[in-house]
Amino acid sequence: MPFDNIRFVLAETTHPGNIGSTARAMKNMALERLYLVNPRVFPHSDATVRASNAQDVLAKATVCTSIADAVADCSLVLGSSNRNRKVPLPVYSPRQCAELVHQNVAEGQQVAVLFGRERVGLLNEELDLCHGMIQIPTNPDYSSLNLASAAQLIAYEIFCGAAAQEATDQTTDFASAQDLERLHEHLEKVLIDIEFLDPTQPKHLMRRMRRMIAKIRPDMTELNILRGILSAVAQRIP
Amino acid sequence: MPFDNIRFVLAETTHPGNIGSTARAMKNMALERLYLVNPRVFPHSDATVRASNAQDVLAKATVCTSIADAVADCSLVLGSSNRNRKVPLPVYSPRQCAELVHQNVAEGQQVAVLFGRERVGLLNEELDLCHGMIQIPTNPDYSSLNLASAAQLIAYEIFCGAAAQEATDQTTDFASAQDLERLHEHLEKVLIDIEFLDPTQPKHLMRRMRRMIAKIRPDMTELNILRGILSAVAQRIP
Repeated sequence: MPFDNIRFVLAETTHPGNIGSTARAMKNMALERLYLVNPRVFPHSDATVRASNAQDVLAKATVCTSIADAVADCSLVLGSSNRNRKVPLPVYSPRQCAELVHQNVAEGQQVAVLFGRERVGLLNEELDLCHGMIQIPTNPDYSSLNLASAAQLIAYEIFCGAAAQEATDQTTDFASAQDLERLHEHLEKVLIDIEFLDPTQPKHLMRRMRRMIAKIRPDMTELNILRGILSAVAQRIP
Repeated sequence: MPFDNIRFVLAETTHPGNIGSTARAMKNMALERLYLVNPRVFPHSDATVRASNAQDVLAKATVCTSIADAVADCSLVLGSSNRNRKVPLPVYSPRQCAELVHQNVAEGQQVAVLFGRERVGLLNEELDLCHGMIQIPTNPDYSSLNLASAAQLIAYEIFCGAAAQEATDQTTDFASAQDLERLHEHLEKVLIDIEFLDPTQPKHLMRRMRRMIAKIRPDMTELNILRGILSAVAQRIP
């Protein structure tokens, strides 16, 4: 089960109810590895009640004394923040985060998503442990999400992303980067031959053509059709 | 503000805390029209505390005695359910729901999303008022989302959907269906001329070409490049 490689780490959560709600939000999306760094109170009846049928996630939660310990074996650490901090880190939407998480999980890596304190979020020295930030799109006039809500949204995107990836893996034989590179070269040559592309100024047009081909994201059948058309054009040119 | 046309309707909520959390989840995503149908207790301090800085949403919530009243002026009513009920209604993911909501809002329609009771969801006679169901993808082993979590996820997709629609409207001049039809015709003619397409059997190849062009979803610049290439090929054929 690939979700075993994904953990949610909560830093110094103040309200135990939020820990319970987060456990439930995680389990709803098939995530079960919860790490708690210095929770103010845990275990606590508020956590248990709010976890509802996700009490097993609480029961097997790992309690740590530092974020560094909680993420020690992780090769990808993403911090969730709805504060627009100036940090020299790449910023991802939850959807982009899910993509990145699944890429890493597919490579057998351990991945952590970090959630800060209810009031002050993540501290700078904790952000230093992150490879990127997740910023959830919100109402600019009221951007402060409840902890469990933030966890719910990110968990949801991770869950949806896995389903999308699985569907992709099973059904489509996408052209490889190498195949696409050959297609670009073939296309460039034909465009020069038909005098549509000026070989002294190829950059701009080829960039646009690459972008269109990227949007197609051709499978092998489509790639073969496109190359077939290019060959047919080349044969007909005197 | 287009979100004024979107309301969330909560049917017979048992726990006032869930009403507060839902108000917060809504406001985080710029949704502020909350309708409460026969809440067990409201107002209540649990609702107020959990609403945090979204107490204005609670203060202006509309309390009704029936769902029919709450949705009377709505031309689109979608019911949220994580129960896999056999209902003769179209089922939408939250993302598809957001798209549908924005289509209706763009036409000036009023739209309602309905949330059922914590334990039993929506009753059959309430589902009869719905034009479709929203099903949130969840862990099949634990699909029962907290009410505010379900509201949070749907509100998030509606918020992201609006941003996507706005970005699309503002920045991209997509080719019209008519333009695309002309492109398909032009392409078909050139493919016949270069003897790649057998005019007695054009269907299958042209279907694939249309699908690739649909994936590009060309803007006017891209459309003009593609037509330019076709014209250049045509000119070079003896």
